[in-house]
Amino acid sequence: MNRLYHMPLSPFCRKVRLVLAEKRIEVELVEERYWERDADFMRRNPAGKVPVLRMDGRTMAESQAICEFLDEVYPEPKLLPGGPVERCEARRLVCWFDDKFHHEVTSKLLYERVNKKVTKSGYPDSRNVKAGAAAIKFHIDYMGWLLDQRRWLAGDVMTLADFAAAAHLSCLDYISDVDWNRNAAVKDWYAKIKSRPAFRNILADQVPGFPPPRHYANLDF
Amino acid sequence: MNRLYHMPLSPFCRKVRLVLAEKRIEVELVEERYWERDADFMRRNPAGKVPVLRMDGRTMAESQAICEFLDEVYPEPKLLPGGPVERCEARRLVCWFDDKFHHEVTSKLLYERVNKKVTKSGYPDSRNVKAGAAAIKFHIDYMGWLLDQRRWLAGDVMTLADFAAAAHLSCLDYISDVDWNRNAAVKDWYAKIKSRPAFRNILADQVPGFPPPRHYANLDF
Repeated sequence: MNRLYHMPLSPFCRKVRLVLAEKRIEVELVEERYWERDADFMRRNPAGKVPVLRMDGRTMAESQAICEFLDEVYPEPKLLPGGPVERCEARRLVCWFDDKFHHEVTSKLLYERVNKKVTKSGYPDSRNVKAGAAAIKFHIDYMGWLLDQRRWLAGDVMTLADFAAAAHLSCLDYISDVDWNRNAAVKDWYAKIKSRPAFRNILADQVPGFPPPRHYANLDF
Repeated sequence: MNRLYHMPLSPFCRKVRLVLAEKRIEVELVEERYWERDADFMRRNPAGKVPVLRMDGRTMAESQAICEFLDEVYPEPKLLPGGPVERCEARRLVCWFDDKFHHEVTSKLLYERVNKKVTKSGYPDSRNVKAGAAAIKFHIDYMGWLLDQRRWLAGDVMTLADFAAAAHLSCLDYISDVDWNRNAAVKDWYAKIKSRPAFRNILADQVPGFPPPRHYANLDF
């Protein structure tokens, strides 16, 4: 059985889970408290991070490397489609969310509010929370600007860029940190991706001590 | 003419420069003081970062998206070769250096010592410098462990992983922050990659106010 070592509110793990589900690859989910640096886990991934995917006797780490692997080996449906230019744009946006959005928003809101408590590593820094709450507005506006010109974030077909963005936003939505009324195009886009069967598993996540708001799993939010 | 907006001591720009040179793609280098957020530059890349590549009328951003594009369109020589498993390992290590190594080492040494001065954004924080100097030892040991089993970092052929690693290490070597005596296999690997024609341009870099040490450009270091 394939096995994904993950944490429910990790956007990087959610991106991989969405790709696995979209491609109908069955996988057993194993929660890995990576910050405890268990020796077996550190052997699997010396970077000490989730996600880690065990598949056919192989161990793979780093969400982007895993997603590229899955898209090459399980091409149905292709999530990096089109020509090299279109793939470049999709990969640019994956980096946008996994690097810039992660740094400016996810790490400032989710990590302060949730991860610090779960990993017992301190209390939320209100300056970070404030900075994250300001930055997410710019990012939603940028997504809206893209979606005014395109059906999906990277072009006219759904790509890994949409999954990367949805992975981050769904984690933040779990703690009610997304203002869906800010931009109608972004809300429509999220409604579309949220209603995919691949998203069901993510909408069922429950983190002890952090109950999700009622709208989190609601397709009509 | 192709044009790369870059900064000389950016490891992400150096990775792209190495790929361009290895594939013999001519490009005009334009230094971009990205932190000044010039309006034209922000239009080219709203993320406000270098590298940005202008090629055939197109603008591309994010170093990994650019490198994947170049490897797809200019396949000689392939820098993500082999099967999906080998490519996954090469991409894992690119992420290792561009994410983990960057966070634990490059940002703690280079950014404290050089970028803060160049961008006039403060003075080096000695705690960061100390943490970076400790962390680079672990990373060199990990590279040595990989190179005990493989000719190149990701396997038996040179890949983008070697360029990502060499891009970071060459920036740190410019400020004498690499102890080449720590691991013989790592030193041999760097000597091999440093002697490639693609590296010449990088060894000629000069940053005003930061003269490189004599060994920096020396192939027998």
